[in-house]
Amino acid sequence: MSKYWSEITKSIEPYVCGEQPKDKKYIKLNTNESPYPPSPKVLEAIKNAANGDLRLYPDPDCDEFRKAIAEYYNLSKDEIFIGNGSDEVLAFSFLTFFNTNETIIFPDISYSFYPVYAGLYNLNYRLARLENDFSIPVSEFAEKNGGVIIPNPNAPTGKCLDTDSIKRILNYNSNKVVIIDEAYIDFGGNSVVGLIKEYDNLLVVQTLSKSRSLAGIRVGFAMGNKELIQGLNRVKNSFNSYTIDRVAAAAAVTAIKDKEYFTECVSKVINTRERIVKKLNSLGFNVIPSKANFIFITHKDYAASDLFTKLREKSVLVRYFNKERINNYLRVSIGSDEEMDFFIEKLQEIMDEI
Amino acid sequence: MSKYWSEITKSIEPYVCGEQPKDKKYIKLNTNESPYPPSPKVLEAIKNAANGDLRLYPDPDCDEFRKAIAEYYNLSKDEIFIGNGSDEVLAFSFLTFFNTNETIIFPDISYSFYPVYAGLYNLNYRLARLENDFSIPVSEFAEKNGGVIIPNPNAPTGKCLDTDSIKRILNYNSNKVVIIDEAYIDFGGNSVVGLIKEYDNLLVVQTLSKSRSLAGIRVGFAMGNKELIQGLNRVKNSFNSYTIDRVAAAAAVTAIKDKEYFTECVSKVINTRERIVKKLNSLGFNVIPSKANFIFITHKDYAASDLFTKLREKSVLVRYFNKERINNYLRVSIGSDEEMDFFIEKLQEIMDEI
Repeated sequence: MSKYWSEITKSIEPYVCGEQPKDKKYIKLNTNESPYPPSPKVLEAIKNAANGDLRLYPDPDCDEFRKAIAEYYNLSKDEIFIGNGSDEVLAFSFLTFFNTNETIIFPDISYSFYPVYAGLYNLNYRLARLENDFSIPVSEFAEKNGGVIIPNPNAPTGKCLDTDSIKRILNYNSNKVVIIDEAYIDFGGNSVVGLIKEYDNLLVVQTLSKSRSLAGIRVGFAMGNKELIQGLNRVKNSFNSYTIDRVAAAAAVTAIKDKEYFTECVSKVINTRERIVKKLNSLGFNVIPSKANFIFITHKDYAASDLFTKLREKSVLVRYFNKERINNYLRVSIGSDEEMDFFIEKLQEIMDEI
Repeated sequence: MSKYWSEITKSIEPYVCGEQPKDKKYIKLNTNESPYPPSPKVLEAIKNAANGDLRLYPDPDCDEFRKAIAEYYNLSKDEIFIGNGSDEVLAFSFLTFFNTNETIIFPDISYSFYPVYAGLYNLNYRLARLENDFSIPVSEFAEKNGGVIIPNPNAPTGKCLDTDSIKRILNYNSNKVVIIDEAYIDFGGNSVVGLIKEYDNLLVVQTLSKSRSLAGIRVGFAMGNKELIQGLNRVKNSFNSYTIDRVAAAAAVTAIKDKEYFTECVSKVINTRERIVKKLNSLGFNVIPSKANFIFITHKDYAASDLFTKLREKSVLVRYFNKERINNYLRVSIGSDEEMDFFIEKLQEIMDEI
């Protein structure tokens, strides 16, 4: 603690992201990155953007990228907001729509950045306790509240919520904003982006980090009715006018337009996931049904913390959360087939040794 | 106003950045961009970064770039914080060091984003009235306050504050953070970065947007004692773990290392500035002594607002602020020699016509 820190700075508990160790080479199955490189067209677009125009500020409104998303999802440009990764979009959303004197709700097991944002803005929150099978307790969101955020598919469970349930939550909360965080939606879930025309209070957040293989570029976006988007722009323009640089904008536009490469990568991840789930089942693991590019697994005979440590020793990084209810689970990102085979091989070795 | 907006969202008055019109081609002297392209080595670094690793998250701590700045300024890495443009660095700094129940001070004529940040975080502020010649009233900063921010050189005046005066302000406020915003320092001012070892309460903010010709890439940084930097990291890691993408990081490292190209560009801008100042003086303009890549000019016989409008009609964009005390001034960025000759030519045409 420093005497120079504000009260907020003293009180917050920052988010801790998945480790990025530099001591040796790992099979990285800990941060839900894509095992496949970005589209070759995206790499070409980045090279083309490396020119003298970088001396000029970028378009603060990301007009071209919003146009590309508008076409992709059949929306209008003023229903789209762009941010520096979906984390920034979420950070702006909490400030734009949630008030300190009201209580927002999100699941007790979900993205661990949500309570951090709440801390940063001094918001009250209530945790909706997931059912024992990790499904979302829809009726819990019917109680009076100051706004809702739910990841769909949920992280770290990978479990999806159906569209009818989301409609019920939207109806319960018609005077408050409901954020559906669809970071992982492309891996088998159904996006609720189509509900935007029907529900003024729906904000859908997505990212290029996962299904477009661009975690290294930092572009996310929100979609919702234009009043919500105007609000986000008010906050963003009170914070930083130019959050997306010229190179990232060029990469993002190209990534959205290259549907063929996107579909191919997503299919490969889904196929690998289904193959590995079967394999893990045969090894006695319980795998939560996943529509994401990761799986959440547990074994009744082996402690997740032990498996985590021993996998790390064998150069495989997965994610372990030492938290109530999920401290016997591992979250494993879906890598390439070769990476997943290596993971299974090491897992078997460990299970034989224990 | 939307019923979905938070109280903060309703109350803020967002920053309005210099216009980026798309209707025709302009000589752009309105946003203090460099007239010169980034270093060829930077463009090469960007092309090299366009590879499959973009599927992976960037280094959240920008280790390599902090190392480059540490070497450049003879600091240690933990005295450096990186942000997505100096605007983001400032946005984080206001939240990290200033409290809502205290009153911060900044000059009445300065960067118009400061009151916007104050609005976003619900901070009180007091404006220190610049002297009539636009110099900073140092003794005003001796009154009890909750923190200080001063641009040096000041914007939009271009005027510099000497190091002894900054020391006085640091001494007055030894229990509060004093931010010196050095966005324009490389064009002839003396950086106070050397005072960091002596003053725990000093935070120096710089950017690659101006003197490194990288407005299109969005990288800024803060330097200060490591407790201040830890505070900034706490806030940043409660907002967005990865604010600098892999491509921007590669560009930034290379830009800092290419001192030769940097020196050449900065010299050219200074030479052009001095030449144009003489020319403007001969046309009867009063030019505030500038150590920045822009000049602040006024003429007793011609209204700045008229000149602004007529220059725009002749495809020259400059910046006009319709604000008390400065509403008869124009802020003119220093472009290339050719651009500035065109500007002077059009200005003379307008003065002949009026």
